[in-house]
Amino acid sequence: MTLSDGRRPGSRAVAADHVSLRRNNLSVVLRHVRDLGPRSRARIADDTGLNKATVSSLVAELVERGLLREGSADSTRTLGRPGQLVELDGSGVCGVGAEINVEYLAVIALNLSGETVFEQRVPVDVAHLDPGATLDRLTDLIKQAVAAVNGQVAGVTLAVPALVQGETGALKLAPNLGWSEFPVAAELRRRLGEPPYSVHVDNEANLAALAAYAELQADVHDLVLLTGAIGVGGGVVTGGHLLRGSQGYSGEVGHMPVAPAGRTCGCGRTGCWETVVGLTALLHQATDADDPVRDPSLDVEQRLAEIKRRAEAGDVRTLAALRDVGDWLGIGGAVLANILNPDVLVLGGYFAVLGPWLKAPLEQAIRERVIAPDGGGCRVVQSALGFTAAVRGGAQISLDQVFLDPTGVAQ
Amino acid sequence: MTLSDGRRPGSRAVAADHVSLRRNNLSVVLRHVRDLGPRSRARIADDTGLNKATVSSLVAELVERGLLREGSADSTRTLGRPGQLVELDGSGVCGVGAEINVEYLAVIALNLSGETVFEQRVPVDVAHLDPGATLDRLTDLIKQAVAAVNGQVAGVTLAVPALVQGETGALKLAPNLGWSEFPVAAELRRRLGEPPYSVHVDNEANLAALAAYAELQADVHDLVLLTGAIGVGGGVVTGGHLLRGSQGYSGEVGHMPVAPAGRTCGCGRTGCWETVVGLTALLHQATDADDPVRDPSLDVEQRLAEIKRRAEAGDVRTLAALRDVGDWLGIGGAVLANILNPDVLVLGGYFAVLGPWLKAPLEQAIRERVIAPDGGGCRVVQSALGFTAAVRGGAQISLDQVFLDPTGVAQ
Repeated sequence: MTLSDGRRPGSRAVAADHVSLRRNNLSVVLRHVRDLGPRSRARIADDTGLNKATVSSLVAELVERGLLREGSADSTRTLGRPGQLVELDGSGVCGVGAEINVEYLAVIALNLSGETVFEQRVPVDVAHLDPGATLDRLTDLIKQAVAAVNGQVAGVTLAVPALVQGETGALKLAPNLGWSEFPVAAELRRRLGEPPYSVHVDNEANLAALAAYAELQADVHDLVLLTGAIGVGGGVVTGGHLLRGSQGYSGEVGHMPVAPAGRTCGCGRTGCWETVVGLTALLHQATDADDPVRDPSLDVEQRLAEIKRRAEAGDVRTLAALRDVGDWLGIGGAVLANILNPDVLVLGGYFAVLGPWLKAPLEQAIRERVIAPDGGGCRVVQSALGFTAAVRGGAQISLDQVFLDPTGVAQ
Repeated sequence: MTLSDGRRPGSRAVAADHVSLRRNNLSVVLRHVRDLGPRSRARIADDTGLNKATVSSLVAELVERGLLREGSADSTRTLGRPGQLVELDGSGVCGVGAEINVEYLAVIALNLSGETVFEQRVPVDVAHLDPGATLDRLTDLIKQAVAAVNGQVAGVTLAVPALVQGETGALKLAPNLGWSEFPVAAELRRRLGEPPYSVHVDNEANLAALAAYAELQADVHDLVLLTGAIGVGGGVVTGGHLLRGSQGYSGEVGHMPVAPAGRTCGCGRTGCWETVVGLTALLHQATDADDPVRDPSLDVEQRLAEIKRRAEAGDVRTLAALRDVGDWLGIGGAVLANILNPDVLVLGGYFAVLGPWLKAPLEQAIRERVIAPDGGGCRVVQSALGFTAAVRGGAQISLDQVFLDPTGVAQ
């Protein structure tokens, strides 16, 4: 019954023609080899149900486009002459992910095999730069990444801690950057010299959720990723798809009203979840104003390593602050688990670094407050991607276009 | 880019073969005629991009299966000889929806054209019956519906105010019925004599959300339906699909912790949203203990009509209670709008009946508390389906199977 669920009568009534059939089958073969590894044409035919002549023709086209290549002889064959394996040719195409966040700029380039070709993150106090100057600095980083790519760039996807208007890529509101109504996609495209590849902009938590989804095991199709930084965002994958909402503004979990007596939020309201679980809330409780871990000109990972060191050393003030943040994390986490019933709540950003102290109170709240038996099976895991999740998700979504329509790559 | 969003690498890599191609095209033609009305074979070919011979063959098979029929001559044609129109043949197949709720049992049968063939709702104090006795009474109603159907039954879908395990249809927990761990799908199937049609069980808010989705205009693909009864449930449609979560336990909005000082909930916790917006909360504030509007043996619509009458007459106590419920509705509504960014928040059940008094405070909260500009465009609408939404959604999901795979209907 899952096929029909929630599908409006007629909304997906698309007749397949033979051009789209071939494009679909090119995509099937390419993804098959990516996901299951090098294999012979005969094996691909067996696995996919396509006939051998069709597979040969599809593989030939994918080789010509530089997406597959001939590999070694098939050593698994015991009868007849050995077949030639085909394997993913990762080198020819890269996806680029970039990120503007409150305290840093970052860029990564991944090739078709998912290997990192270029990676850089620089601490920048973005809230004190104007959008144009920030984009200038980011453009330099992206150009370095593009120069490092030996082959075609499939696209650039920029992550921002902001409400992004889905269709235009215009930034509507980024409370923690102090930006609003800025046509960031168009401005970046212009700075990159109107490049032949696509330039997209998306919410950082959405892209981080996609990266977390790729990071997790194959039986997880429903997850919520929480990005812990100055702001707190949520990226929701449900049934294997990113939940975007009607205008792309979903996942604004940082602004759930949970703490009526809390501090004023970057958005101007009081009581928002991020005022009690964001990095600022932790730093205010755990440190004094002149503590270097509050200095945004230092790399955020170094600062968090210091907090972690203090917690490991049993520093009472640090541990109390972590316990308090963990309890508040549980309040909001239970709301999310009740509404979305994810398999997994993924801790990203600073939540992941300090996960050993935050997980227990969060798990306890889910057990106690979620209506489904055993908290609906919702596990809490720490992402290993740290602050690279959003740029990785951006690079992956750029590459996804190639996997879904290999004919978009020049022959 | 929407095609690629959130899709795990390879997860949808399904090669199309020619059997699935024909099944898909049968579905395309059937849904095309349903959605756009009677039309000639030539017009269907133009609209869908399928060639005329293929369309003729597909229509012939659909006519044979009793799903389409020949209609009148095509009066829109100005050149050449008039073509014959084909139209939906609604009469041959019905979907049945049933519902067990705290205060009533209900059944509806809809034919392929969406026309009501049978409908009944009876007030029953289900919380004071055991599950078996309740199912016996429901089975009688379903048998009456099946007897009223002149043709094939596509399936029966039962709505329950409960956590339902997605794959087995087992009821895990229904706090307001006092039921838990009951294999309701299997028990109903047995009572119906292991019928040839499918018997499914689903959460009532999910099914009501599907009905609301069908009720709304075609440009809405993201909505949250709130079922206002003794319990409060949420059904979420996102990107045109029902959001189920990993185990089918999503949408438990009634148990969001929003009112720490609130009454004890049916689930045993305190502070749940339904303790401040559920029908019991309204009745406790608006009426005395011996007021007949609290009597569950009376039909819920009659009791709500009386409350509505009092509100229209300006009764101070009734209006104060409605204002209070409306304010609390806004607190939770803003959380949902921030997380899910729906086009529309649909008021169902008693919220719809009393919508004129609940809408304003809810809309105000969304404007004030939702981070997206203008509340993310989230409108509040009252469903016109009243307490029939869940049974309608159930009947529709039963019929959807026919539209998605017309070969499931006997020739």
